[in-house]
Amino acid sequence: MKVYVLRMGHRISRDKRITTHVGLAARAFGADGIIISGDMDQNVLSTLSKIVEVWGGPFTIRYERDWRRVIEDYKRSGWKIIHLTMYGIPLPDVIESIRMDPSDKLVIVGSEKVPGIVYKLADLNVAVTSQPHSEVSALAVFLDRLFEGREFYKEFTSAKLKIIPQERGKKILKLIEG
Amino acid sequence: MKVYVLRMGHRISRDKRITTHVGLAARAFGADGIIISGDMDQNVLSTLSKIVEVWGGPFTIRYERDWRRVIEDYKRSGWKIIHLTMYGIPLPDVIESIRMDPSDKLVIVGSEKVPGIVYKLADLNVAVTSQPHSEVSALAVFLDRLFEGREFYKEFTSAKLKIIPQERGKKILKLIEG
Repeated sequence: MKVYVLRMGHRISRDKRITTHVGLAARAFGADGIIISGDMDQNVLSTLSKIVEVWGGPFTIRYERDWRRVIEDYKRSGWKIIHLTMYGIPLPDVIESIRMDPSDKLVIVGSEKVPGIVYKLADLNVAVTSQPHSEVSALAVFLDRLFEGREFYKEFTSAKLKIIPQERGKKILKLIEG
Repeated sequence: MKVYVLRMGHRISRDKRITTHVGLAARAFGADGIIISGDMDQNVLSTLSKIVEVWGGPFTIRYERDWRRVIEDYKRSGWKIIHLTMYGIPLPDVIESIRMDPSDKLVIVGSEKVPGIVYKLADLNVAVTSQPHSEVSALAVFLDRLFEGREFYKEFTSAKLKIIPQERGKKILKLIEG
């Protein structure tokens, strides 16, 4: 099962750091890649690429102007489209059936205002709580529930740095490949 | 068991939205309040207060200049200090003992650079994955694991708005109290 994240409605001025955090959370919690839509923002794309270069992958990062075409293309290819929104069905009610479905998944996280058509194009509108919070937290909790914590044991390939867990302080392994 | 979040090192210019998202995630995922340290930022405090006013509480929000005194005060009062950091012990290895411990908890999330002393003052340094991601996602996944999803059923009091989950579209209940 492949999982891609579609980050919609990125605005350079407001969302620079939030979209970066969405990308980092997508990678850390086991998604295979992120597609960013909205303003084209080279800084966010290169910040995320640098993280993959240093901390490993695979994790693909790309920009697409036309989010609607992205959704429709993935849908046609048999991917399940899951839109995370506070207005949807509570995650605990649907996570098991999502997990059981072996289809690849496109997980949509929006910015402030998501067009109504997204709710219709999505196979599922899922609420990670029905309270206002953050696309970053919604995505992370969704992925943690989807992978049931297996993402904690994911090995990233071609990493240059790796952390060795410590009770206190920091221990970083620098990997040198010939 | 009470849970407060201490957000350290807030910088007005960079962290405005990230700290707001930390506060929203803290509230949505069941924490009782947030203490913000770093730059004093009235905008973040009032954005969070407005959310509580509209979507309900209880959820306390306050600013404290001196984060070290906050940590030491809570520690002296018997609270467990849990610092979320990618360098710590993996969450799956410690979450059960954290859950079993009935003590109140102060959960620290830092910004870019956390002073070394925090790792020493903390009773536990916990890694929500050992990968770079976001204080917003780290906090949300930590709280979701701590409360084992019970936060999804939390009722907020004095809410003016409440969402009724829908398969498609949005349904908001406006609560009018006499």
